[in-house]
Order: sequence, then C-alpha cells, then structure tokens
Amino acid sequence: MTAAIVTASILVIGDEILSGRTKDKNIGYIAEYLTALGIDLREVRVVPDIEDEIVAALDALRRRYTYLFTTGGIGPTHDDITADAVAKAFGVPIDHDPRAVALMRERFPNADLNEARMRMARIPQGADLVANPVSKAPGFWIGNVIVMAGVPQIMQAMLDEAAPRLKTGRKMLSASIPAGMREGDIGTPLAEIARAHKDVMIGSYPFSNEGRPDTNLVVRSRDPQALAQAKTAVETMLATLRANGVGPA
Amino acid sequence: MTAAIVTASILVIGDEILSGRTKDKNIGYIAEYLTALGIDLREVRVVPDIEDEIVAALDALRRRYTYLFTTGGIGPTHDDITADAVAKAFGVPIDHDPRAVALMRERFPNADLNEARMRMARIPQGADLVANPVSKAPGFWIGNVIVMAGVPQIMQAMLDEAAPRLKTGRKMLSASIPAGMREGDIGTPLAEIARAHKDVMIGSYPFSNEGRPDTNLVVRSRDPQALAQAKTAVETMLATLRANGVGPA
Repeated sequence: MTAAIVTASILVIGDEILSGRTKDKNIGYIAEYLTALGIDLREVRVVPDIEDEIVAALDALRRRYTYLFTTGGIGPTHDDITADAVAKAFGVPIDHDPRAVALMRERFPNADLNEARMRMARIPQGADLVANPVSKAPGFWIGNVIVMAGVPQIMQAMLDEAAPRLKTGRKMLSASIPAGMREGDIGTPLAEIARAHKDVMIGSYPFSNEGRPDTNLVVRSRDPQALAQAKTAVETMLATLRANGVGPA
Repeated sequence: MTAAIVTASILVIGDEILSGRTKDKNIGYIAEYLTALGIDLREVRVVPDIEDEIVAALDALRRRYTYLFTTGGIGPTHDDITADAVAKAFGVPIDHDPRAVALMRERFPNADLNEARMRMARIPQGADLVANPVSKAPGFWIGNVIVMAGVPQIMQAMLDEAAPRLKTGRKMLSASIPAGMREGDIGTPLAEIARAHKDVMIGSYPFSNEGRPDTNLVVRSRDPQALAQAKTAVETMLATLRANGVGPA
C-alpha cells in the first residue's frame, strides 16, 4: 500500500502579478489539474522579473519537489528572462535552438523573424521542447523543471503537452460533505474526528449560503477505506449535532 | 529624492488553495491595494496547513520585507493553525486574549462560545488586534506580520483596518500605452529603450484584442520626469514602427 507520492511546486514569474495589474489565473488551474493527475502541489511562489530572484526560487523549489512548473517570462521582450534564469540555475549554456527556430519558421515569414521573436527560440542546452499549439513559440522541460508561458490559453495547452510524460502518484481521493451549519458549531467534534483519523486530511471551509453562514467539510485520503470511515464519522457527527438542534444560522 | 521604499510579501496558507478546490482571490486584491498605497509587493508564497512549512515561510518572508501579510488559517477548526505558527515563529506564548474574547462575546451568546469558537480568540502574546467588522473574530498584527482571514470579504475588511497604520513609500507611478501591434514587432526597439532608461521599468503584456494579437506597454517609475521621458520614447518608437507599416496583425 506504499504508493509513491509525486510532489510539485509552481513558480509564477512576473512583475505584473506582483503589481496587481494582471490577476493570476494559472495557479488555480494548475493546482486542480495536478490534483486530478495524482500529483500533490505543495508550494507556490510568485517572484518579480529579477534574475537573481528567479534563480534562487528555481533552485529552492526544484530541489525540494518532484516537479517545478514555471509560468511567465518566455516572450519576445527584454523583460522575458525566464529561459536565461533557468539556464543559469542549471549551469548550462543557452542559445537559439534549431528545433525551436524551425517551429518559429512555421509561423513567421523570414522578414518577421527579428531579434525579438528569435529570443523565443533561445532554449537552455539539454532541454526538451514543450510544444505550443497556440502560437508556436515553445516552452521547455529541463531536469524536473517545466517552463511554460504566462498567457493562460498557451499555458493550458503546454500543460496538456507535458502531462502525458509526468510521473503520477496514487490519486488523492476526496469527499465533500455539506454541513448545513456554522463552522464554529462543528469545530470541536471535528477536531476529535481529525485526531482519530490520522491518515485522512479533513478540511473545513466556511462559505455564505445565500447569506447564511454554512460550511463544507472535505475529507481527503489516498486510501479509499480510510476515506469512507472518516466520511462516515463526519456524517454521524453532523447527524448528532442536528438531533441536538444545531442547524443553519 | 531618495524616498524610502517599503516592501511587502504575502503568505497564503491553506491546503484548499494547493489542491485547487478554492481559487485564491486575495493575492491580486492585496497586490493592487498595496501598489495603490505605495508599497512594493515583492514576493508571494502559498503553503499547506503544516506548521513547520508555515513557520519556515513566515521566517523567510518577515525577515526580508518591510511587511508580511498572511491570509487563511485563523478560523475555528483543527486545520486553522496560523496563529500557533506565528507564535512559534516569534517565540512567544499564545493563549485566549481577553480583548479577542470580549469581541467574540459581542457576537456569540455564552452557549455558542464553545472550544472551537474560542480558538479564534487565541492570539500570540504582544500582538495588536486587527478588527473584523464582518464577523468579529479578529486578525492580529505582531512585529511586521499582519495576520488576516482567508475569506475574501473578511480579508478585505481587515486590510482596510490595518492600512492606516502601514508605512508607505513614494508611490510607484505608471503609464499604460496600448501598442496596436504584436509584441514580437516591438521587442527589439523596446529593449533599446529599456537599456537607455535604467531608472524606469518597462513591461510588455501581450493580449488578444478581439482575436488579434496586441500588446500593452507599461512604464513604471517613482520619478515622474523619468516616467514621462520613457513614455515619450516608447510613443516615438511606436509612431516610427507605424510609419514603417507595422500595425495590427
């Protein structure tokens, strides 16, 4: 029953996210995607377009988790420095990659293949390309780092390209249980259940149900039997509270 | 003209963000809010509900930036462990705080003030409270760390409460220039402008303009004169490209 656990991290690169000008849409997407694949997302960082900051974060995250996915900073302009930072982190040279140049030639006539666009064909030595079915300029995969675009539509297509090659672990299973009562009414008995079911993660998420405070309880485990037992314990607890008159606010 | 630069970081705490079950709405909001105040957001991390991970991230970020804002993990259930992690990071005791208990009593009758709800009155020693006008259970402020709820509506109210006490730096000014052309057509001359205007940050953000690739250029600086000069240089560059027949795709 000891299935390998595959972990991942995300590094979002871009001043525009930190200034608030652009609202990130990639973290949530990748998180959900990896969870569905059976990969545990364990950490996310957002850093500015500063090479030293990117390299430091790359090194911290790639050494700690099975995979590191980056988004942003692989376009044609001077502020796109992700590929250089990745080359620096891995200590490898970076130059125009013939495979990437060939892809760019499929899209752009010679006259349009200026210095700026050719920047997008600069790939660290030893990397595999990650195809970009949207706009050709590829992402890449080096070591355990998968480098993707920041534009959500392109990032999503690149993730689809990379996914079949990812190692995946035993899938995390989950059950969501609508409580129909306030979080504060559940917390004490729920903590007891959490203590009694150490191999299961139990999350409690308050939300507003048409203006009334309500709670979703989420039970997670890789072991279906452990999950079922904890789910039953939670449902029994909720039924007992209801029988004692606890209900919606 | 050497104005103090005030920096900040955000630590998002919660398994539900990393699993993708909940999509974070706080990072973008806080980013925009701090930028408007003249505070530079420099880094964001997202970590799970694991005490050692939270403490390590708290320590890394609070030592590096003027402020650290945390979201999540201060509710009434067993998975809400942010307050304990903050106490541990600062090496101070944590217990029910009479001020926080008094606030809770304003909202809840005695019968409802169970062990779970009383968890929300546990505050690290030496912290100031951050009022919660939405649902009473307060956030807190200790050292340079401001601890807020994860529910966006409550987080936003707490940020409003904390804001008047924040040091702010000289505001970052910015000008957005719609290019009306593809990023790859701009990259080369834009890089020259960036090299010639070192005191200005120039960002290039591609977007789809009713299906046609287009670009927004954003010039940022704390110095209005430097900003104006770089903006003029960008506008002149775009006019020259247009005169040479470069336009929308």
